Amino acid sequence: MARLFHVPLSPFCRKVRLSLAEKKIEVELVEERYWEKDTDFLRRNPAAKVPVLRLDGKMLAESAAICEYIEETRPDPALMPRDPEARYEVRRLVGWFDDKFHNEVTAKLLYERVNKKVTGEGYPDSRNVKEGARAIKYHLDYMAWLLDQRRWLAGDAMTLADFAAAAHLSSLDYISDVDWNRQAVVKDWYAKIKSRPAFRSILADQIPGFRPPAHYADLDF
Amino acid sequence: MARLFHVPLSPFCRKVRLSLAEKKIEVELVEERYWEKDTDFLRRNPAAKVPVLRLDGKMLAESAAICEYIEETRPDPALMPRDPEARYEVRRLVGWFDDKFHNEVTAKLLYERVNKKVTGEGYPDSRNVKEGARAIKYHLDYMAWLLDQRRWLAGDAMTLADFAAAAHLSSLDYISDVDWNRQAVVKDWYAKIKSRPAFRSILADQIPGFRPPAHYADLDF
Repeated sequence: MARLFHVPLSPFCRKVRLSLAEKKIEVELVEERYWEKDTDFLRRNPAAKVPVLRLDGKMLAESAAICEYIEETRPDPALMPRDPEARYEVRRLVGWFDDKFHNEVTAKLLYERVNKKVTGEGYPDSRNVKEGARAIKYHLDYMAWLLDQRRWLAGDAMTLADFAAAAHLSSLDYISDVDWNRQAVVKDWYAKIKSRPAFRSILADQIPGFRPPAHYADLDF
Repeated sequence: MARLFHVPLSPFCRKVRLSLAEKKIEVELVEERYWEKDTDFLRRNPAAKVPVLRLDGKMLAESAAICEYIEETRPDPALMPRDPEARYEVRRLVGWFDDKFHNEVTAKLLYERVNKKVTGEGYPDSRNVKEGARAIKYHLDYMAWLLDQRRWLAGDAMTLADFAAAAHLSSLDYISDVDWNRQAVVKDWYAKIKSRPAFRSILADQIPGFRPPAHYADLDF
């Protein structure tokens, strides 16, 4: 069976979990204390990052490379369109969330509030938290602008771009950092993706010391 | 003609320039003062980052998405292998350089020494510079470990992974931050890639206020 070395609230791990689940690839989840950098973990991935996926007898790292590999070896159901322009748009948005959104929002809210505590790095920097809280509004508005023109973020079909975005937002929702009342169209999109069977394992996550809000796992939030 | 909005020493822009040149796609280069975030630039790319490429009548952003698009629409000469495992390895290494190497080395050397001065953000933080100088050694050793087993970084053919790595290293070489004597196999690899016609425009770059070392454009460095 596939085995994923992961951290439950890592958006990069969640994106891979969603891809695997959507394609009905069974996976054993192994929590990785990546910040301890023990030799076993470094042997699995010299980059010392999660996710690391054992699949097809290989150890795979880098979430974008992993998702493309899964897509190329298990194309059904498709999470990438076939047309190069549409594929570009999916990859642009995956980059948007995993780079820009990550740096401006996830790193400033989730990493400050959760990762610092879990890894023993200390207290949240309130300036970062404030910046993250401001930046997420702009990102929700950008998503609303996209979703006003399209059924899903990258076009009319659900793709890796939706999983990348949902991975970040679901981790932030676990710590109540998403204002779902800001943009109705974003809330509708999230309700749609949240109700997929692929999302179940993510909604069942429990992180010791952090209790999610009641609406976190609620499909009618 | 294609038009690339870029910054000369940006490794992400250089990776795109190398891809375009290798595929003999003529491009007009337009320097972008991205840090001024003027409205024209934000219209071109709401992420406010370079590179932005105008190609096939569209504005394309996110260097990884751009390179995959170029590859899918202009597959000849190939910068990606055909086998999914080999493609995974290319993408893993592009991620390695554009994320890990970027954060640990490029941001701490190039951005401290050059970008801060150009954008008026002040002086280099010597602690960052020291960390970057230490980290690049480890990365050169990792490259040597790969190149001891392979002709190119991701396998026996030149790929986007080589361009990603060469883009970062060439920008750092412009400010004399690469110790080419550390690993002979890395120096040989760089000499090979540097002598390609696709590299010429990069070796001709001149950044006002920063004079490159004599060896920068020398093919027998």
